[in-house]
Amino acid sequence: MPTSLVTGGAGFIGSHVAEHLLRMGHRVLVLDDLSGGDAANVPAGAAFVAGSVCDVALVDSLFADWRFDYVYHLAAYAAEGLSHFIKRYNYNNNVLGSLNLINAAVNAETVRCFVFTSSIAVYGNAASPLTEDVSPTPIDPYGIAKYTVEQELAVTHEMFGLPYVIFRPHNVYGERQNIGDRYRNVVGIFMNQTLRDEPCTVFGDGEQTRAFSYIDDVAMPIADVVNQSQAYNQIFNIGGDIPYSLNQLAAAVSEVMGVPLRVEHMPARVEVTHAYADHRKVRSVLGIDSSPVGLEEGLRRMAAWARQHGPQEPSVFTEIEIPRNMPPSWQALVSGPV
Amino acid sequence: MPTSLVTGGAGFIGSHVAEHLLRMGHRVLVLDDLSGGDAANVPAGAAFVAGSVCDVALVDSLFADWRFDYVYHLAAYAAEGLSHFIKRYNYNNNVLGSLNLINAAVNAETVRCFVFTSSIAVYGNAASPLTEDVSPTPIDPYGIAKYTVEQELAVTHEMFGLPYVIFRPHNVYGERQNIGDRYRNVVGIFMNQTLRDEPCTVFGDGEQTRAFSYIDDVAMPIADVVNQSQAYNQIFNIGGDIPYSLNQLAAAVSEVMGVPLRVEHMPARVEVTHAYADHRKVRSVLGIDSSPVGLEEGLRRMAAWARQHGPQEPSVFTEIEIPRNMPPSWQALVSGPV
Ligand SMILES: NC(=O)c1ccc[n+]([C@@H]2O[C@H](COP(=O)([O-])OP(=O)(O)OC[C@H]3O[C@@H](n4cnc5c(N)ncnc54)[C@H](O)[C@@H]3O)[C@@H](O)[C@H]2O)c1
Ligand SMILES: NC(=O)c1ccc[n+]([C@@H]2O[C@H](COP(=O)([O-])OP(=O)(O)OC[C@H]3O[C@@H](n4cnc5c(N)ncnc54)[C@H](O)[C@@H]3O)[C@@H](O)[C@H]2O)c1
Repeated sequence: MPTSLVTGGAGFIGSHVAEHLLRMGHRVLVLDDLSGGDAANVPAGAAFVAGSVCDVALVDSLFADWRFDYVYHLAAYAAEGLSHFIKRYNYNNNVLGSLNLINAAVNAETVRCFVFTSSIAVYGNAASPLTEDVSPTPIDPYGIAKYTVEQELAVTHEMFGLPYVIFRPHNVYGERQNIGDRYRNVVGIFMNQTLRDEPCTVFGDGEQTRAFSYIDDVAMPIADVVNQSQAYNQIFNIGGDIPYSLNQLAAAVSEVMGVPLRVEHMPARVEVTHAYADHRKVRSVLGIDSSPVGLEEGLRRMAAWARQHGPQEPSVFTEIEIPRNMPPSWQALVSGPV
Repeated sequence: MPTSLVTGGAGFIGSHVAEHLLRMGHRVLVLDDLSGGDAANVPAGAAFVAGSVCDVALVDSLFADWRFDYVYHLAAYAAEGLSHFIKRYNYNNNVLGSLNLINAAVNAETVRCFVFTSSIAVYGNAASPLTEDVSPTPIDPYGIAKYTVEQELAVTHEMFGLPYVIFRPHNVYGERQNIGDRYRNVVGIFMNQTLRDEPCTVFGDGEQTRAFSYIDDVAMPIADVVNQSQAYNQIFNIGGDIPYSLNQLAAAVSEVMGVPLRVEHMPARVEVTHAYADHRKVRSVLGIDSSPVGLEEGLRRMAAWARQHGPQEPSVFTEIEIPRNMPPSWQALVSGPV
């Protein structure tokens, strides 16, 4: 019975990965500090420790006690656009936290594969469709931090032999997504706004495109990859194939939620205009032959869950390090009266 | 009278940069935690604060009090080979420390240029002669951390308009180098070994090559660059042109110090075999037309200083995070009786 650590397992993707692992017969420990997740997301049957990957002593003691076969490292704060304004937080959480796990995995000598969720953010402004052999040029601290950890895994494999698999998902949506974070995950933001009877807010003209990825198309291959040694020490894009504009997304969300479309355009912010990824590599190496879940079907499933879950009070990130050049709508949140 | 912060100014290159800045008429504050430097290196006329770039409150208060025009960020622990075994230390000191300065520089709104010493280490195994347009592929945590900060400076310029200049020096040697650190700077190590009547220790066959750079050829252009706005927001290799093998270096050091050559070969370690850089860009953009100081002449000047400074007790870095796969000579240092 293999033993797996899932960091960020009280979050969106992590909780689905943990669920798949339990089905695969793994013993699962979730480590999550609940900064973005919810203990209620941890699937029944998984053990749960509330704590941070930044806590070196805790991480080391968990590796000693549990003797993990596999590490699935999903814990991160994934607010890409906000990362410019919280550089230190971003690197501390997303890089130093990852290093603690890498150090512990090397020292444990029990870990057979370290699975890491990087992001399409590493590609920056590279031309779509993005392929894994493009040289990364991230354009924000979130993307730089992901790329730093990718490079660390490569040199750690070279130096200490720790096997790894890196996934670069993009725009994942589905049940258990945190829809109350106003800085990220446009699908969740639109759904929460719709539940709260607010218009969908869009930066710029809404013609920027993304290929949205339904959770099952992402979480299952991530969980299963440790059984596919041909995939070890490689990098894979993963997720949906078809790009939609944000205007199209807003229309589709309104449609499945049965409300008239209302969009509020805000000033454009610095972001990639068009980004979608090529998935031939993950299909061929992991032998995936099913088509991804379509946007309408995926949104329908998520909407059913969101309605039941109810509207969320949007959270405000208060530890801003650089309170300059933020989108005015965010600026108002942190500089306004508390 | 421009005001400049020099981090790492009690160290080798930083103290020379500070000295040039004073000659250029700058008001200079040195911030250095003395982890690798010596307060005696801080040039007369510069103010000195003993403290770490990792201390956010200290960094912020210095920026508020001093209203820096220029930041020269040289503080780092530059033990490239050791960085595999001290990943967290490396990223905390070299990345998070840098971010504190970048945040403070953006928030201060007084900084006209942020000068950063990266390293040739970002190139990894790329083929020499290395040019600045090669896509970095570092092969150790030290090089990854330098590359991370380079990327941060680029996105910070894009987002907040902070001008920067990045230098990638390599194998710098000269007066005031810390010759008591056994993990780095082969010239200093050889000189200290010679002063201590020990053989020069070489990893592998000693046929790996490096282009050694005399300090004056590096520190002066770094100090002066803030006056050359055509160089802003660019990256420059800097240093010596001619590659020498470590065997040749050991012979040259013995020669200038007047002792018979004695070399002790140790097992090879993971490192780049041949590395030397192209310097056409820095010459043309900064208008440098003098030739670099030759190895023999540079070693002679450094040897005169080293003899006067005296042999140093080699320091041992005790906070090893991964005590595996180290070169046996280092392993013995950390695992032996204290
Ligand atoms: N959702 C996407 O579209 C997407 C796309 C690309 C990559 N990713 C990556 O996938 C991973 C999971 O993202 P998600 O969408 O499920 O986000 P999420 O916020 O739902 O999950 C992340 C979880 O990590 C936890 N966490 C954060 N910092 C932690 C720390 N220091 N210690 C312990 N736990 C911590 C949070 O509490 C949260 O439960 C992240 O690494 C993210 O960067 C997500
Ligand atoms: N010497 C080389 O060949 C070489 C080559 C490429 C790049 N560099 C870079 O040039 C810079 C200077 O290197 P050097 O050779 O003079 O090394 P050095 O060790 O002599 O100088 C670095 C100084 O930084 C200080 N320092 C380290 N961590 C600090 C912290 N957290 N806060 C404040 N001070 C801190 C040390 O005490 C030391 O005085 C470094 O950034 C290094 O990475 C050096």
